[in-house]
Amino acid sequence: MNSAVNFEGVFPILVTPFMEDGQLDLESFDRLIRFMVELGVDGVTILGVLGESNRVTDRERERAVKAAVAAAGAKLPIVVGTSHRGTLATRELSQMAEELGAAAVMVTPSQEPGHNEERIYQYYRQVAEGMSLPIVVQDHPASTQVQMSVPLLLRLVEEVPQVACFKQESVPTPPKTRLLIEGMTQRKVPILTGLGALYGLFDLLSGSSGFMTGFAFPEVLMGMVKAMRGQQPEQVAAIYQRFLPLIVFEQQPGIAVRKEIFRLRGVITSSAVRHPGAGLQPFAAEQLQIILNQVLPGVDLTKPLTAAHVNGTEPG
Amino acid sequence: MNSAVNFEGVFPILVTPFMEDGQLDLESFDRLIRFMVELGVDGVTILGVLGESNRVTDRERERAVKAAVAAAGAKLPIVVGTSHRGTLATRELSQMAEELGAAAVMVTPSQEPGHNEERIYQYYRQVAEGMSLPIVVQDHPASTQVQMSVPLLLRLVEEVPQVACFKQESVPTPPKTRLLIEGMTQRKVPILTGLGALYGLFDLLSGSSGFMTGFAFPEVLMGMVKAMRGQQPEQVAAIYQRFLPLIVFEQQPGIAVRKEIFRLRGVITSSAVRHPGAGLQPFAAEQLQIILNQVLPGVDLTKPLTAAHVNGTEPG
Amino acid sequence: MNSAVNFEGVFPILVTPFMEDGQLDLESFDRLIRFMVELGVDGVTILGVLGESNRVTDRERERAVKAAVAAAGAKLPIVVGTSHRGTLATRELSQMAEELGAAAVMVTPSQEPGHNEERIYQYYRQVAEGMSLPIVVQDHPASTQVQMSVPLLLRLVEEVPQVACFKQESVPTPPKTRLLIEGMTQRKVPILTGLGALYGLFDLLSGSSGFMTGFAFPEVLMGMVKAMRGQQPEQVAAIYQRFLPLIVFEQQPGIAVRKEIFRLRGVITSSAVRHPGAGLQPFAAEQLQIILNQVLPGVDLTKPLTAAHVNGTEPG
Amino acid sequence: MNSAVNFEGVFPILVTPFMEDGQLDLESFDRLIRFMVELGVDGVTILGVLGESNRVTDRERERAVKAAVAAAGAKLPIVVGTSHRGTLATRELSQMAEELGAAAVMVTPSQEPGHNEERIYQYYRQVAEGMSLPIVVQDHPASTQVQMSVPLLLRLVEEVPQVACFKQESVPTPPKTRLLIEGMTQRKVPILTGLGALYGLFDLLSGSSGFMTGFAFPEVLMGMVKAMRGQQPEQVAAIYQRFLPLIVFEQQPGIAVRKEIFRLRGVITSSAVRHPGAGLQPFAAEQLQIILNQVLPGVDLTKPLTAAHVNGTEPG
Repeated sequence: MNSAVNFEGVFPILVTPFMEDGQLDLESFDRLIRFMVELGVDGVTILGVLGESNRVTDRERERAVKAAVAAAGAKLPIVVGTSHRGTLATRELSQMAEELGAAAVMVTPSQEPGHNEERIYQYYRQVAEGMSLPIVVQDHPASTQVQMSVPLLLRLVEEVPQVACFKQESVPTPPKTRLLIEGMTQRKVPILTGLGALYGLFDLLSGSSGFMTGFAFPEVLMGMVKAMRGQQPEQVAAIYQRFLPLIVFEQQPGIAVRKEIFRLRGVITSSAVRHPGAGLQPFAAEQLQIILNQVLPGVDLTKPLTAAHVNGTEPG
Repeated sequence: MNSAVNFEGVFPILVTPFMEDGQLDLESFDRLIRFMVELGVDGVTILGVLGESNRVTDRERERAVKAAVAAAGAKLPIVVGTSHRGTLATRELSQMAEELGAAAVMVTPSQEPGHNEERIYQYYRQVAEGMSLPIVVQDHPASTQVQMSVPLLLRLVEEVPQVACFKQESVPTPPKTRLLIEGMTQRKVPILTGLGALYGLFDLLSGSSGFMTGFAFPEVLMGMVKAMRGQQPEQVAAIYQRFLPLIVFEQQPGIAVRKEIFRLRGVITSSAVRHPGAGLQPFAAEQLQIILNQVLPGVDLTKPLTAAHVNGTEPG
Repeated sequence: MNSAVNFEGVFPILVTPFMEDGQLDLESFDRLIRFMVELGVDGVTILGVLGESNRVTDRERERAVKAAVAAAGAKLPIVVGTSHRGTLATRELSQMAEELGAAAVMVTPSQEPGHNEERIYQYYRQVAEGMSLPIVVQDHPASTQVQMSVPLLLRLVEEVPQVACFKQESVPTPPKTRLLIEGMTQRKVPILTGLGALYGLFDLLSGSSGFMTGFAFPEVLMGMVKAMRGQQPEQVAAIYQRFLPLIVFEQQPGIAVRKEIFRLRGVITSSAVRHPGAGLQPFAAEQLQIILNQVLPGVDLTKPLTAAHVNGTEPG
Repeated sequence: MNSAVNFEGVFPILVTPFMEDGQLDLESFDRLIRFMVELGVDGVTILGVLGESNRVTDRERERAVKAAVAAAGAKLPIVVGTSHRGTLATRELSQMAEELGAAAVMVTPSQEPGHNEERIYQYYRQVAEGMSLPIVVQDHPASTQVQMSVPLLLRLVEEVPQVACFKQESVPTPPKTRLLIEGMTQRKVPILTGLGALYGLFDLLSGSSGFMTGFAFPEVLMGMVKAMRGQQPEQVAAIYQRFLPLIVFEQQPGIAVRKEIFRLRGVITSSAVRHPGAGLQPFAAEQLQIILNQVLPGVDLTKPLTAAHVNGTEPG
């Protein structure tokens, strides 16, 4: 029952590309997955909040999973967000992901009147009973309005064998990450963090194993993880500081900025967000250009960043 | 483009029956629809909030619509809740309903960061462009966190021809109902109210055309509408007052009580609510029995209530 | 340390009268308190949510408490809402109430990022340490967004001696009331319910000891409590049913309706709600008149209702 | 009626120092104000959200304003947060601030059921009528849940003469700042931004006039504003980038980190947050030290940062 996926390193959360008229753009999606293979990330997560999973039908979801799995081949594990407000529906979407070749699912609970931790526990338990894929437990109160306590999370890791990773996004993340690591005395699972890597330095210093987030330059996060593994916290801090203006800009509410960056990187055709989601704000493209010029002056964004770019050992 | 459905009278919002293990119980659903035909209601609405539409997959949704349409035959228009957080997805679910034989759709907007009334307007406009069924615009801030102003609603009725009815549930409902009626100087559409008929008397006095709500004794609401049409407001008030303890009890948060009543009426097999929804609270069945004994003493609940029951002209 | 106040019976939550220009109307407040003495209620609560406590300065609060205590004399215990977002501030407001002659305080916790039950416990503990008045613990998630579990409430009653009453308003109230009563195996305190008595029948059947709420005809609630004490549940149900249309109408969001009724009863001069609170909605006065005519036809509202009015043993 | 205060530059929002037992620590407050004078900021704002204004009584508020005004003398304008849920109460607190010698007030509206922009407009109008101090309109939906549209804000600046500044904190801030600047065709007022300067670079590039926020190194923000005025956007970006890890760390939810920095700077005695506010999270002090070492290695924090520190022209 244990995961074949090693949840350490960098697992970009991918946007779902749409065309200007709102239709799924699977061609861009294919390019996006292949670009991730080229970058050498450890896996990707599709159909999360950033992937606008709440704006697609189940049929579109099926098409997206198929396309991602086909593009990734054996080179990249595909994690699929399968959260649904109904427990059985989450299970069914997870089973669908399994059948289509996904490597894992990411699941978050929903707000429910009179909710309590026992019911959240049962939610994961029942979802897990229906399939054998590893489960990434996403803890993201900002989008779910659900608070999961450290004892609940520890119970999940101890009693639900499929639980294979925590995606820790409950701010402030560093203390919760530490408390989880200290609390996992039996079975241990890795902790990845998200939030666009806004607190990436502090998260790594707290013991997280990497990132599962949507920052559009995964190379940067890979550089940070590599430096951390190499016991070079100053190098982690230096990379973080260099790219932080971009990280901050990118994590503003709304997902259009990230889509725009992938468009600038030549990977997706349109930065369109599906209605009624907010598109690129006025002046945002202009400001993005300023930041990119500051952080990556003169760099060809359509190519993977080199270690030199990330580490700043060559100009820009 | 105008509606074949006349949105006046009583359109019960139906629960979706599940078995104890959470699976769709289409046999009970069939019985429930036929029971509604027997009661002589003006239509039914399926897959609303009460119908746990947020806990079913699209495939289950398809099966439910098919079953309802088959059971109703030509005798009863089926209104289908098709709200989805994505505009195109709402349109697609609406098209699916149309293809499967539904008579209308009920649509409510979702909360969205940076939302504004122009975007809500576009949401309805784009959904409408995709199909020809009449649209019931549901205004229910308690479940959507979306406030729709009177000017927005009036714009919808004037500019979107498929808009055929307002389901007005923004408390306090009476002033908003009056302002809408006064404001519809061009095209007029009926206003139905919901909220379990909690404010039913006040709503009818304010000019609403009936009810689209989940109260488990539609006969009572039919009696009120009939008395209102017959210019007998005292009779409306008397029926309302007689059944109000039950109306109040039933509209408590959670939907298990309504399912339990339909179970007691012999229509559905189980009152199970799908996980993670809350089931029947402790003591609720007991208290329900007390209220039923008070309001309908000695009455066989498995049969439609007679006019005498509703009007109180025979004991119990 | 035990309460001199017996928290059983009917404790109306009072509105705070303002003049049309928004200034405190202490003359009306005096009349209101004396009217309560005349009705024979068991106590009154001032400066709760209904009393617009969140729209007055501390100085106005002081004037209001003084006026209430002076008007009540020894005839009526005055309970003062002293909730504040700061623990020490709640304590200080409670001490002020004590010095000014109040009989008890009513305290509710506030929503706080990262809140947990231990901190809520400490909130009550620290408030209690500062004074000797009995504390009514208000459990009203609708206004506070704070959920207090049954174990937390039981801990409060066991470990904080000043806790003297629960004001139970967490819907559905009946099961929570029962669980609290069953759980108080050591020290027992009475449970009063509120919510405008919307669930009054069910609350009394669940074991509550009466009401602490703003319904503008306390005589009705007194009649229900008396019938309950006399082991006449059918009579409780009959009174509840008779007045339920008014109860439902009155508990709509906004407090202007209650102020309007007290104005109609000749007790307060103006039904003005303090800006930016919402005043009487369009058509509300008109509808109120219809309901009053239905429920209390021909009754002089400026006089206390008689037992005959309440019990319906004489027409109107 | 026009403001004597020029709302351009840097106006730190100050914490309110408390002792370990929660009592006001006016001695530290005095030191804090004098430190600000020493730094040469353009003004300070007290009793905002960061100043825990929601946890103090009106009497404590009075003592805090007096202490601040006394410490500042003629050297520093004191802006006082006077927001209250009641319009008249906001006015009264503003009048109190005026009488005590404050230079301006900062006012934000509260969430109110059925709220609309006309009522928010009236809120400011009525507050303004009661006093002559300039008003800073704070637009911070994260703490107020109130959305104020650009047209509403423009109406305020045109019709309420006391409105002298916008504190713009509605994310994403840059487009709203630009739209406001473009929209102020008649009377123009400066726009300051907050949010701990998280988007400080983008805000200045969008045309804001500076900062009104709680970042505990105002010298850094002063350096950015100075570089901006000197037409050196690259220098603004460089300073921003250098200090961004600290800015990000500091703006995490909770205010304890900022208090801890002022304690480390030798200005306040304790970093205690008033109960029930959250104190310093586990590991936060440790991580703060790491960041400070990275951003300001070897610097004596108890002294004002020099231009060299800010601009990075000398090591650390």
